[in-house]
Amino acid sequence: MHSIEELRNIFLAYLQTENKIIEPKNLYEPNHYFLQIGGKRLRPLLLLLATDIFDGEIEQSLAASLAIEYFHNFTLIHDDVMDKAPLRRGFTTIHEKYNLNTAILSGDVLMIKACEYLAKVNEKYFKTVFDVYTKTAIEVCEGQQYDIDFETKEVVTHDEYIEMIRLKTSVLLAASMKIGAILGGAKKEDTELLYQYAENLGIAFQIQDDILDCYGDEKLVGKQPGGDIIQNKKTLLLIHAIEKSNANNDKRLDEILKQSVFNNDEKVNNVLAIFNTYNTKAFGIEKRDMYIQKSIDALEKINLNSEKKAVLNSLIDYLVMRDF
Amino acid sequence: MHSIEELRNIFLAYLQTENKIIEPKNLYEPNHYFLQIGGKRLRPLLLLLATDIFDGEIEQSLAASLAIEYFHNFTLIHDDVMDKAPLRRGFTTIHEKYNLNTAILSGDVLMIKACEYLAKVNEKYFKTVFDVYTKTAIEVCEGQQYDIDFETKEVVTHDEYIEMIRLKTSVLLAASMKIGAILGGAKKEDTELLYQYAENLGIAFQIQDDILDCYGDEKLVGKQPGGDIIQNKKTLLLIHAIEKSNANNDKRLDEILKQSVFNNDEKVNNVLAIFNTYNTKAFGIEKRDMYIQKSIDALEKINLNSEKKAVLNSLIDYLVMRDF
Repeated sequence: MHSIEELRNIFLAYLQTENKIIEPKNLYEPNHYFLQIGGKRLRPLLLLLATDIFDGEIEQSLAASLAIEYFHNFTLIHDDVMDKAPLRRGFTTIHEKYNLNTAILSGDVLMIKACEYLAKVNEKYFKTVFDVYTKTAIEVCEGQQYDIDFETKEVVTHDEYIEMIRLKTSVLLAASMKIGAILGGAKKEDTELLYQYAENLGIAFQIQDDILDCYGDEKLVGKQPGGDIIQNKKTLLLIHAIEKSNANNDKRLDEILKQSVFNNDEKVNNVLAIFNTYNTKAFGIEKRDMYIQKSIDALEKINLNSEKKAVLNSLIDYLVMRDF
Repeated sequence: MHSIEELRNIFLAYLQTENKIIEPKNLYEPNHYFLQIGGKRLRPLLLLLATDIFDGEIEQSLAASLAIEYFHNFTLIHDDVMDKAPLRRGFTTIHEKYNLNTAILSGDVLMIKACEYLAKVNEKYFKTVFDVYTKTAIEVCEGQQYDIDFETKEVVTHDEYIEMIRLKTSVLLAASMKIGAILGGAKKEDTELLYQYAENLGIAFQIQDDILDCYGDEKLVGKQPGGDIIQNKKTLLLIHAIEKSNANNDKRLDEILKQSVFNNDEKVNNVLAIFNTYNTKAFGIEKRDMYIQKSIDALEKINLNSEKKAVLNSLIDYLVMRDF
């Protein structure tokens, strides 16, 4: 088996070969730029890892891993427009560096390139892989829509929130592993179990993100905590605290959220104090651990030897039980 | 064989069955709206016609025909954003009726739905059909990029213009017929010839559009002639007149194009007078007829009986030699 570092290098070399600027330059140069500003390359790595773990040839999975990375970057380019984000990974976003039309059209062609690369997989797996891909791609758009809807929706339950993050983030991680496993020649039931493993891992990963944004160590996370609180972002923690406040007829949180002028540190401290009243952090940890357990349960049922299961187990620690 | 009217009714009934508003409504309702404001449904009809003409079962081609219509509407939704167009077919465009983010995201999901429907074709043809589709979809984006580039490009040759309209408009018409023929069980060489037939027909169709915008009968075309001239739109005719003006060191056209304040009728008349000097209309007709001839040449080589060739021949008259 290859190490994650080896897989990353193989993927990056392939990306560099394929990600060329061709004519019309104004269409392809922005994508070339966006793809070389970095990122964890998590999805292609999960895909290649899944192929590797089922003893498939990772060379046979490179095109699919690039397809998934292209698709993911297409969603980022369009999401940045929708969020009016000036920066991505510390670099200027496409619509800022070029313009709105470029962000739309270069994003569009990137998503079609994703399809083109997906069609390069071994033909005997193509239809199966493609059905996983389209189902997932549609879900990702639905997740993004729910995320937009939640900004203005009066009441969002924590179940609705988890369904949103499942669609927006988790299913693409899960599909990456499933596609990798399919291309690695895994049995259908194992590809399904691997999907469940990664789907639940993805939800836990996102919940951990919400926790770290409030309780992370600034030095490790690399940014000041409380960013989500300052923006009234409906994370799992805030949703929990709102639910508890409403149940207890406690108006404090509602008043803080309605303030248009405030001191950032004060707001963060006041909200964290309310989280404290309702054991919101513990609720988040409990939910996170529930999804980790679901992930482990799926993992245990997969038909793999203990050494390979250990690799997948360590991925849980690496991705979720992190403090960065 | 079915008549065009029968094919249209079958397609529209299928569209109505499939085009449902599901959750999240804010994602799917805009597409439902956009797809029911009409349009000629030219691409799905060409696809179904091609299947029919090769004695295939059109029911087997309905999903692919919807895929093409979905893809085409995705490009229209995003093009309307890029062109800042308030209306499409007399109805409010998505970004105007809803907002920019809705136009981007609903467009995105529509293009993925196109892939989903394409995957419903008979599995033995799927890979072949899908490769035609992705190649074409990429070309359509490239055509749109060239169209954007040409707005600010100093010199556009008429060959560059024709390549742009081939990519932006023609290849999707051609791919529709090719996919229809593949699904109808046509031989490879016949699917290629049908592609050439429709590709050249599409170019002739677009040139005729340019001619009608200048010389069409207002009552038949349904709009005042000269719209392209008023907007300085680089059509084949304007490009020809610019090329001739430059060759003759004639500054009149250049001066007219640079005017920021002008009377519409006067501008149209003055430009048409210059077109007249250089036989620009005749040049347009000559080019159009050259592509019609290429279309006929391809048609003649297709392995079809004369009755079926006559249907395709009448399509040339219907689509190109129109005065509306």
